Amino acid sequence: MNNFELHPRLAADTHQIADLALCQVRLMNDARFPWVILVPRRAAIREVYELEESDQARLWQEATMLGRGMQETLGANKLNLATLGNQVAQLHLHVILRRQNDDAWPGPVWGVGTPRPYTQDALEKMQDRLLTLIASVFDDG
Amino acid sequence: MNNFELHPRLAADTHQIADLALCQVRLMNDARFPWVILVPRRAAIREVYELEESDQARLWQEATMLGRGMQETLGANKLNLATLGNQVAQLHLHVILRRQNDDAWPGPVWGVGTPRPYTQDALEKMQDRLLTLIASVFDDG
Repeated sequence: MNNFELHPRLAADTHQIADLALCQVRLMNDARFPWVILVPRRAAIREVYELEESDQARLWQEATMLGRGMQETLGANKLNLATLGNQVAQLHLHVILRRQNDDAWPGPVWGVGTPRPYTQDALEKMQDRLLTLIASVFDDG
Repeated sequence: MNNFELHPRLAADTHQIADLALCQVRLMNDARFPWVILVPRRAAIREVYELEESDQARLWQEATMLGRGMQETLGANKLNLATLGNQVAQLHLHVILRRQNDDAWPGPVWGVGTPRPYTQDALEKMQDRLLTLIASVFDDG
């Protein structure tokens, strides 16, 4: 049984992009940073080590492959990967492209300033770019 | 060839604890948080995906196994795992135990307040606990 349900706070902060083999890929609604979260579609998981080992490996693969593709496609000085979960305990892994001229550099992005929601046009453009990228990186995208 | 050299900033901020199969385990010199970094002993690596695939998997295994052990031994509400590298580009993965009464909860720890260096006694006690833990979790510890 796998009664995965997305935490409402994560749902409210993000737009659904795609489902990979393990994770939902969701775009943070903050146009200041190219920033997605990966949410394993497994029920009641808080910590990485609560996943089965094969899922732990898959989570990391999905994050690094997607992050690499985003960095190569969208451009960035550094890729940030993080699972924190202090505010929303449901396991989610942040994949964030960082640039030396972004609003938080060189600090982390969390809690910095105010999110800038995507306009509808910018959202559709980013969704298209991510879907094209995912289709090229993942067989199951 | 593998001319691994630890970045001097990472060396200055941390105490060496142990070498795992892939990573140096180093304790951040900040007694406010149980906080180690894992530094893959590979030369000139900035991003996770620059490691060979087997090393990518091993890095994640070492982080999750150590983090789980630390959480079970030392107690924490949440495990934070992150590779940022905006300030020091050499690849390093943070493994941080978070508690609801710590100085940064529920925000991330980076850049919050002033690090509180370990006293010699507290350092030795933490080193002992981590070495005991590593010996029990890793064959190669």
